[in-house]
Amino acid sequence: MKIGTVIGSVWATRKAGCLSGQTFLVVDTGREDLVAADQVGAGVGDRVLLATGTVASRYCMDAPIDAAVVAILDPNGERKL
Amino acid sequence: MKIGTVIGSVWATRKAGCLSGQTFLVVDTGREDLVAADQVGAGVGDRVLLATGTVASRYCMDAPIDAAVVAILDPNGERKL
Amino acid sequence: MKIGTVIGSVWATRKAGCLSGQTFLVVDTGREDLVAADQVGAGVGDRVLLATGTVASRYCMDAPIDAAVVAILDPNGERKL
Amino acid sequence: MKIGTVIGSVWATRKAGCLSGQTFLVVDTGREDLVAADQVGAGVGDRVLLATGTVASRYCMDAPIDAAVVAILDPNGERKL
Amino acid sequence: MKIGTVIGSVWATRKAGCLSGQTFLVVDTGREDLVAADQVGAGVGDRVLLATGTVASRYCMDAPIDAAVVAILDPNGERKL
Repeated sequence: MKIGTVIGSVWATRKAGCLSGQTFLVVDTGREDLVAADQVGAGVGDRVLLATGTVASRYCMDAPIDAAVVAILDPNGERKL
Repeated sequence: MKIGTVIGSVWATRKAGCLSGQTFLVVDTGREDLVAADQVGAGVGDRVLLATGTVASRYCMDAPIDAAVVAILDPNGERKL
Repeated sequence: MKIGTVIGSVWATRKAGCLSGQTFLVVDTGREDLVAADQVGAGVGDRVLLATGTVASRYCMDAPIDAAVVAILDPNGERKL
Repeated sequence: MKIGTVIGSVWATRKAGCLSGQTFLVVDTGREDLVAADQVGAGVGDRVLLATGTVASRYCMDAPIDAAVVAILDPNGERKL
Repeated sequence: MKIGTVIGSVWATRKAGCLSGQTFLVVDTGREDLVAADQVGAGVGDRVLLATGTVASRYCMDAPIDAAVVAILDPNGERKL
């Protein structure tokens, strides 16, 4: 998974019917901004884990989605060398 | 998903039979131009959400397609920090 | 999908049995050269659409292939802003 | 698969229910840091093989995970020209 | 698929049980080094075709593998413009 920071959100005028009710967050992964469906309740500023690809779709009831927030990291939850 | 701007369209002389009737838009994602099937009705200049991979194919009746427009963003629908 | 230009072909001395009979083209996508199975009949110089991933495999009878030519673009078939 | 070096770990305050009990490692692949589920028992400093995509999810009981550690390399287990 | 040159191999001290018996080669694709399962019998110096993603796993009996050598190119088997 990628780690990223939630920097905003988007909403749509028209969209695939099966996307109704989904919240879409903009996540800065350092390399690029991705839009991810959120069912965990993340907000701007949160550090999150993104799952991408078919995995994200399956997690979101098979909606046509290729990125999903699957976890919000603890503020002290990143330990690197 | 990636956010992009529709910058054009393409059409084919020969193609896989199962692609008949599909509209293909060229979408500038900032990093690269992708061609995506459109079933939402996007036009040049629209800001759109792209789903990629198997997810896009499933959304388009399992056609051999790996990118699809799944939403048109509201002109004021992008809120970033 | 990616747009690319067919710049050559490859053939193999040894390969997975299920790849027999497949034609493999080298396609320049601008960012990298990819090798794609071709069932549409593309030739060197053609501008083509590539589908990648599981989608390409399914299109080629589940062969261990992750890129396939799915359309040949019309010489005047690319309209960009 | 990608080769990488385990450089840390992350934990979450909130997460998808099906991620409970998973250990998440941060792996430096040279190009980017990825977070991967670990069921092999890798630790900081280990050189590991990462499988990504749907494959990783299937390996982890279909959890919404797109990267998994599938092997720890032998300290003398990399032979390159 | 990507074309690459086999530049080495890796082996593991600990790994997912279902990876037993697999040979792993390091393949230089020009952009990055990938590790791929080999069932074709490639050796160092060979030019090979790599299939990546779920396709590779399915080719290797659903092992948690996301890259596989599916063909060895003929020494004179690359024709480019």
